[in-house]
Amino acid sequence: MGNADNMNPPPPAIPPPQPFIKSLKNTLKETFFPDDPLRQFKNQPPKKKLALGLQYIFPILEWGPRYTLQFFKADLISGITIASLAIPQGISYARLANLPPILGLYSSFVPPLIYAVMGSSRDLAVGTVAVGSLLTASMLGNVVNALEEPTLYLHLAFTATLFAGLFEAALGIFRLGFIVDFLSHATIVGFMGGAATVVCLQQLKGILGLDHFTHATDVISVMRSVFTQTHKWRWESAVLGCVFLFYLLLSRFFSKKKPKLFWISAMAPLTSVILGSILVYLTHAEKHGVQVIGNLKKGINPPSIMHLNFDSRYLTTAIKTGIVTGIISLAEGIAVGRSFAMFKNYNIDGNKEMIAFGMMNIAGSCTSCYLTTGPFSRSAVNFNAGCKTAVSNIVMAIAVMITLLFLTPLFHYTPLVVLSSIIIAAMLGLIDYDAAIHLWHVDKFDFVVCMSAYIGVVFASIEVGLVLAIGLSVMRVLLFIARPRTLVLGNIPDSKVYRNVDQYQNAHNVEGILILEIDAPIYFANSSYLRERISRWIDDEEDRIRLSGETGLQYVILDMSAVGNIDTSGISMFDEVKKIVDRRGLKLALANPGAEVMKKLNKSKFLERIGQEWIFLTVGDAVGACNYMLHTCKSKLNSDEKYSNNV
Amino acid sequence: MGNADNMNPPPPAIPPPQPFIKSLKNTLKETFFPDDPLRQFKNQPPKKKLALGLQYIFPILEWGPRYTLQFFKADLISGITIASLAIPQGISYARLANLPPILGLYSSFVPPLIYAVMGSSRDLAVGTVAVGSLLTASMLGNVVNALEEPTLYLHLAFTATLFAGLFEAALGIFRLGFIVDFLSHATIVGFMGGAATVVCLQQLKGILGLDHFTHATDVISVMRSVFTQTHKWRWESAVLGCVFLFYLLLSRFFSKKKPKLFWISAMAPLTSVILGSILVYLTHAEKHGVQVIGNLKKGINPPSIMHLNFDSRYLTTAIKTGIVTGIISLAEGIAVGRSFAMFKNYNIDGNKEMIAFGMMNIAGSCTSCYLTTGPFSRSAVNFNAGCKTAVSNIVMAIAVMITLLFLTPLFHYTPLVVLSSIIIAAMLGLIDYDAAIHLWHVDKFDFVVCMSAYIGVVFASIEVGLVLAIGLSVMRVLLFIARPRTLVLGNIPDSKVYRNVDQYQNAHNVEGILILEIDAPIYFANSSYLRERISRWIDDEEDRIRLSGETGLQYVILDMSAVGNIDTSGISMFDEVKKIVDRRGLKLALANPGAEVMKKLNKSKFLERIGQEWIFLTVGDAVGACNYMLHTCKSKLNSDEKYSNNV
Repeated sequence: MGNADNMNPPPPAIPPPQPFIKSLKNTLKETFFPDDPLRQFKNQPPKKKLALGLQYIFPILEWGPRYTLQFFKADLISGITIASLAIPQGISYARLANLPPILGLYSSFVPPLIYAVMGSSRDLAVGTVAVGSLLTASMLGNVVNALEEPTLYLHLAFTATLFAGLFEAALGIFRLGFIVDFLSHATIVGFMGGAATVVCLQQLKGILGLDHFTHATDVISVMRSVFTQTHKWRWESAVLGCVFLFYLLLSRFFSKKKPKLFWISAMAPLTSVILGSILVYLTHAEKHGVQVIGNLKKGINPPSIMHLNFDSRYLTTAIKTGIVTGIISLAEGIAVGRSFAMFKNYNIDGNKEMIAFGMMNIAGSCTSCYLTTGPFSRSAVNFNAGCKTAVSNIVMAIAVMITLLFLTPLFHYTPLVVLSSIIIAAMLGLIDYDAAIHLWHVDKFDFVVCMSAYIGVVFASIEVGLVLAIGLSVMRVLLFIARPRTLVLGNIPDSKVYRNVDQYQNAHNVEGILILEIDAPIYFANSSYLRERISRWIDDEEDRIRLSGETGLQYVILDMSAVGNIDTSGISMFDEVKKIVDRRGLKLALANPGAEVMKKLNKSKFLERIGQEWIFLTVGDAVGACNYMLHTCKSKLNSDEKYSNNV
Repeated sequence: MGNADNMNPPPPAIPPPQPFIKSLKNTLKETFFPDDPLRQFKNQPPKKKLALGLQYIFPILEWGPRYTLQFFKADLISGITIASLAIPQGISYARLANLPPILGLYSSFVPPLIYAVMGSSRDLAVGTVAVGSLLTASMLGNVVNALEEPTLYLHLAFTATLFAGLFEAALGIFRLGFIVDFLSHATIVGFMGGAATVVCLQQLKGILGLDHFTHATDVISVMRSVFTQTHKWRWESAVLGCVFLFYLLLSRFFSKKKPKLFWISAMAPLTSVILGSILVYLTHAEKHGVQVIGNLKKGINPPSIMHLNFDSRYLTTAIKTGIVTGIISLAEGIAVGRSFAMFKNYNIDGNKEMIAFGMMNIAGSCTSCYLTTGPFSRSAVNFNAGCKTAVSNIVMAIAVMITLLFLTPLFHYTPLVVLSSIIIAAMLGLIDYDAAIHLWHVDKFDFVVCMSAYIGVVFASIEVGLVLAIGLSVMRVLLFIARPRTLVLGNIPDSKVYRNVDQYQNAHNVEGILILEIDAPIYFANSSYLRERISRWIDDEEDRIRLSGETGLQYVILDMSAVGNIDTSGISMFDEVKKIVDRRGLKLALANPGAEVMKKLNKSKFLERIGQEWIFLTVGDAVGACNYMLHTCKSKLNSDEKYSNNV
């Protein structure tokens, strides 16, 4: 070995032992503070630290002082634009959640104010969302019937909102934001598409003017409910619905063609509401089967903190609803905030946003609001209208407040069917065919996950779809860990580079040496697999050699570059592989094990068992040393033969 | 670029598109048939294939024809030895499961015969296990009281055994054996230790001669139950128990010291039973508070197939019990089989073993047996007694059959307290302090998992401990995926090798270039983290450069060697990283992306966006190209300066 070693750089050293506390601290920091949020606090005087701390919690203190009149002009326009969208959407989504329509307006007043102070996105517009509303309706509806016990149902909705807020804030405070990352893009595309389909199907009730309708959300129940009542369909309401839907879709079509005309589509819901209300008022259609909203109470949000219901009979439901709707709305809100931040080149701290969303919902639950987040459609309108800061949310809140104080009677004659059209138009935008097709082209498994979520939501229930998609995603990650790639490496001609022989046509095997790359950390979940797979590679290689008549296999080199970590099961695996290799009369060498792996192999005495001289810095070094030994042996053998011949 | 390129080997090519079906087939093969069990069938005539197939299902056909008289001598001795252990242990464990003692004998008759025909381990001795028995008692006991409804309880135990067998066989047939791998070594050490502690605590009932005892298994309930009944403690039984426990432990101590005396410890339980029975018979101690087994029915296993209970009220419990006990006993049986195979240098196919275990339990459930597997203690005795093949199991079964037919009356006077001593002695061997200490030294997290399992089992319940340990293990794997390592690489002097600067003291940064290694596949679960972490590395590097006054950062090279796969969220992450890098006026290069990653980056058009010329075969090539450009620019700048100076 000595000579071979001298030609090469020294092999990897065993890292010096770190104190347990220090390595624990490092691990915790990497796990919970990967973005190092406290970086700016370093080396600052205490006063500055306090100011920075306050700015960290209330970003408005950071951008507020730099606010200009020009910014305000932009924010005023975008604020009024999103208010015109928020009012009809708010009423529609509250109805979707089986809650009094006025709650939709309440929810567009308090939460945007909270977000304006605590949120760090400049483009997010706060409000209720269709999917969250539907989830609330379906999860609470399993326990309490909204028609029979409307007060209890309302109070449970507040309680669920409180729990959603607490859960969101807790995720942010304990820096567990990565839990949201387990909702993959594919899951969200499928789930949102499915939820949008379900929401559209639910609108058939309003469009067809039906009084009775199924409580189930799956397509089969809905279709059965629709087609067993054909005699009750109301053509007046259907015609009105189709006309407005056509108008809304047309306006969106134009806005998409010319982004400058975004305000046509932004204003369309409000104009639909106004036109619809005038039409009903003039024709008295409310007496001919066109249902209307009816009375809305004047005045801003009444407090609801005393209505929070912690009755043990409903507590589990409230907590479950809170957690599920909370995480779903977080996923949407964070994704929306991030994507607009990416456009405008600023940064968003996910955990900080979660705290803002949480506080917004906690405050909302005490002031007669239900679940709010940052809906994509509204934020996109806000962005297109040229908003500069969260002041546009404040403008929207003030516009909604004025509506609540003075304009609610105007909605008396608003036909429900217009609200249904507004919901359908918004939902059709959420079904993202292109994204699904893209998934199919790039990654088949992601497509399967996406379609499972979609089919689960549409044919079973929202919860089933979500569980299915998350289950599949997690299973995929676990399966990756359980079945890591192992690759055979070959030498790229005229270099010391070794690469996968399947990927690189010109890489060729080194005679007598099998080089394997292991492409994952070695854990209990894959150690048996790796042992079997490595022994199969050796079998395959020996078969190949037997057929080709090359020199027999002598060395097995494991390239450990990609092995980030190892646990005790993994170390036992190495012991077993060493035995397998020894039994076949081969020698085992390791190339480029990482610091963590070296430390554990050393602590478990595996380094002693394999011999420190069999650890190399690079695959090239390992091959060099093996070749050196191969040829020394051969020439020794040759000289021995000569010697014996001579004798 | 042109010049720089010419000096280096060609960059990685995009792999040719594979037909979807072919790549699906490959993935399925790697996932479910990693050990390629059909390898031996290749290129064989049909008749040979049939013979091989039968030998595959019934290994006895493979080794049977080579069986010799010498083998039989060895198997006879070891078979009788394990029978002497099986009889008292079987009775003890059946009592632990709250089942009639005779079931322990039945379970050592049929299942070993099945295993001898279908199993592929030569050293495994089949029988019931303490942990499985206790789990059966605690899970079925939640629904049916064994004392009040013994018949129902017995029938449910058969049904649970049937489901355990079906589940085990299904895992094997569908090649899902890797599910067992999710029970890590650390989990098993902690769980087994906890279960052994719980079993020992339960024996206090027998040792102290108590009639009433808690049904809970946690240490607090047991201690309360013991110490509230101090007035009912029976000294006779306690003395007897301690004496026999001392004898059993002493015999094990000697056997450990001198492995040749293994038979002392193997025979000790039977001698305890014989001595205890004689003592009770002579002193009539059964009338003085020493409980005895009483009548055991003569005759071999009665059929129980008609007693299987599929009543919907109990079905869930039976299935749940079957699955949990099935997977726990599989984990033990497979681990035992594998470790002895490793000693004797032969190979065991985990999935095939699962089918054997499954058939053994299915057959057992129809012939009045309950859950059996390959217990460690019994197999170790078998191994030490020099067994050669599974014939030792047949010998044991015949010995048990003889006992059942003729010798059961002899157990009438066997004191229960001796059985308790036998259980305690066996259980103390399962508490593996050394393994726990080893875990602490090598891997702190594994130690935490192990202790959680232990504490969960001892202080809460067996199920809680198991769920806790598996949950923690899976969470660890997910956390690894969610928080992959990223490392800064530096150049090792006088080489083209780049290694982690933290691990290698002599590796030094390349001026103007940041080289990062990503150590995991890039998935939805880590894509946000990686984006933030990479951007933090860039921040850190720029801070460092500002302080040291080096040339400003110009290039970011991502070493992709360890990135085994990528999904659509990961690709979006690359798009975002590209934007972040562009925004800072830097250039992004990728080194050594794998085939799968190249394919997906190409399909999603990211390769076009980044530019094919920014993909390199090695980090060295990438650095070379960047350096070339850096210096060309510099010299160009210099010549421009000169030019302007001259003008």
